[in-house]
Amino acid sequence: MVGVRGERWLPPRVGMVGAGQLARMTYQAAISLGVHLRVLAAAPGDGAALCAADVTVGAATDWAVLEPFARGSHVLTFDHELVDVGQLRRLEEAGCVVRPSAATVEVAQDKVRQRAGLAAMGAPAPAFRPVARAGEVEAFAEEQGWPVVVKAARGGYDGRGVWVVEGAEQARALVAEVGGRLRLLVERWVPLEREIAAMVARRPGGQAVAYPVVETVQVGGICHELLAPAPLEPALAAEAQALALRIAERLGVVGILAVELFVSGGTILVNELAARPHNSGHHTIEGCHTSQFENHLRAVLDWPLGLPTLVAPAVATANVLGGADGVDPLLRLPEALAVEGASVHLYGKRARPGRKLGHVTVVGDDPADVRQRARWAARLLVGE
Amino acid sequence: MVGVRGERWLPPRVGMVGAGQLARMTYQAAISLGVHLRVLAAAPGDGAALCAADVTVGAATDWAVLEPFARGSHVLTFDHELVDVGQLRRLEEAGCVVRPSAATVEVAQDKVRQRAGLAAMGAPAPAFRPVARAGEVEAFAEEQGWPVVVKAARGGYDGRGVWVVEGAEQARALVAEVGGRLRLLVERWVPLEREIAAMVARRPGGQAVAYPVVETVQVGGICHELLAPAPLEPALAAEAQALALRIAERLGVVGILAVELFVSGGTILVNELAARPHNSGHHTIEGCHTSQFENHLRAVLDWPLGLPTLVAPAVATANVLGGADGVDPLLRLPEALAVEGASVHLYGKRARPGRKLGHVTVVGDDPADVRQRARWAARLLVGE
Repeated sequence: MVGVRGERWLPPRVGMVGAGQLARMTYQAAISLGVHLRVLAAAPGDGAALCAADVTVGAATDWAVLEPFARGSHVLTFDHELVDVGQLRRLEEAGCVVRPSAATVEVAQDKVRQRAGLAAMGAPAPAFRPVARAGEVEAFAEEQGWPVVVKAARGGYDGRGVWVVEGAEQARALVAEVGGRLRLLVERWVPLEREIAAMVARRPGGQAVAYPVVETVQVGGICHELLAPAPLEPALAAEAQALALRIAERLGVVGILAVELFVSGGTILVNELAARPHNSGHHTIEGCHTSQFENHLRAVLDWPLGLPTLVAPAVATANVLGGADGVDPLLRLPEALAVEGASVHLYGKRARPGRKLGHVTVVGDDPADVRQRARWAARLLVGE
Repeated sequence: MVGVRGERWLPPRVGMVGAGQLARMTYQAAISLGVHLRVLAAAPGDGAALCAADVTVGAATDWAVLEPFARGSHVLTFDHELVDVGQLRRLEEAGCVVRPSAATVEVAQDKVRQRAGLAAMGAPAPAFRPVARAGEVEAFAEEQGWPVVVKAARGGYDGRGVWVVEGAEQARALVAEVGGRLRLLVERWVPLEREIAAMVARRPGGQAVAYPVVETVQVGGICHELLAPAPLEPALAAEAQALALRIAERLGVVGILAVELFVSGGTILVNELAARPHNSGHHTIEGCHTSQFENHLRAVLDWPLGLPTLVAPAVATANVLGGADGVDPLLRLPEALAVEGASVHLYGKRARPGRKLGHVTVVGDDPADVRQRARWAARLLVGE
């Protein structure tokens, strides 16, 4: 490329499908880099649609919307995986640059494919089986023992689409209720010591960086806190990083890959994958030299990746989950900002009990101290 | 204020006059806080106008533009001081919240008023005098010694509007050239050991925080680098912080105040003030727990101020000043991103030799190391 004196070079246009908080925070990173980030929003009130300068409103699976959106972007990427992989393939065939690729999204959006892919590469994960009938759940449980975990193959998040099933009767009731509309899998229930996440960013050519492993404190399937670095044996943390890099390579991920893992019996087991910026990496904004959002952009643009290391010995992030009173946390923001060192992120979403409305990060020296301050600020935001 | 269940509270609307890089980076901070930042841009291609969702294009001194812009904002604030103070007074009289106030802006925009105010409060600053004729410059120089520094009272920046005058002949030529259109002051030339900046954020009620003092490495009146913390005796750094807090109090500043200082003969002297986010605080984005941009917003919204301390032992920022070839640094971004730990900020401005087009910050442990990396990345961006 040849630069011309005094010419303002038109910035690269990255089109992001989805305009939730992930796109919103990616937008902040895009401003620093001088990248033009366009968002495809389901509704004009979506978090990123409220702040982005270039917003297309429409359904991510509407070809009449998606196709021109992709053609108007140098690179198409995603803040969620509720997309039509067939449409992504058509875009790729038409010459659009889709990152991660249709093939990667196809695996990421389907837990059965995820597990099959992990099994094929020998990655450690709980035993699983796709199921359609209650009898299949029972047969699996007879082999593996009760309880078992039944999951929707697609679309689950924040504890939705995941059921711990204690016995045959409960299995029959569940399959009767959801089996008609959801593809299901069953997996072995694993006693957890903790949950962790290993995040990597990967470029098209394979260059990749691994973030320090983070502990994800989950309550009812919803991530409440991130603690970095995760309190793990160094060898286990290194194993998780190496595994995430191997999965990214195997799936041909371009961009961020988040691998959620169980620590059980002193070993790690893969729980889920997400091939996009992810809730388990929000602490990277203040806590790491390069945030997951900036590294996602660098990766999909095939630019050198940034340093993923922590800037301080201890980083904690507490999610702001809508309080019982349903009041917008903006109303309580001043109280939270009074907490020393609290970096507050609000997503511009309508408040509902339990909904992820924002997060708070604190960076410091002492894990217990930063955790306490992040939790305190997050609770003040929801009136607890 | 009473929150209603499920209601999305309309975020506070901050209107920023000016849409350059300061507004652009304030916009990033506003997204985190859930604040609706509107910008008044001179042109649609201004740095912040390219990324903000709510942009008004018009002249900052056009009452027909400014008045409705202010009325549509809960708080009016500024990314530059090229405004009409009389108009700001009218807005205040009409009940608009203007922060900093018209009275503060009036002092900040005029170096003669700045110096008179500093003298009245006993703040250390070089001897000065307003001048209109070459003879007055000569008389001042006879008292204080040649060379002297002649400055335009208004509108100078990046070394423009500042002339080091060596003798009477040069004084006459200068006054003949610019004296007709510019109000001037003359000040004693001070031999510099270094230049530093002390930044504070202040709320309407007086609560204030002081950032660690930063060294500003200037070349030809243009800031090339920021080094934090400034390599100073702790007592001198503390004196600079205390002085900045005192000036902010005296001027009734609301928002950020940047005080540029000379270190000369082991003491500090005030050079200039800016009552807004400032180039001397760009390192605070990655380098401090709360950036100057976030603290400016918190201050003008009368919210608790954030921790201004450094997150690491050493922070360096190198400005990206347009290279001789005039090529857009976006074209060279990948090379700069390959520098370990380089956080690059591009402002979306048309490249011109010497123009501030962006900056690079590196956070780490060793002052020489972070400085070298920041400079290296900044130079790569301009093809040096």
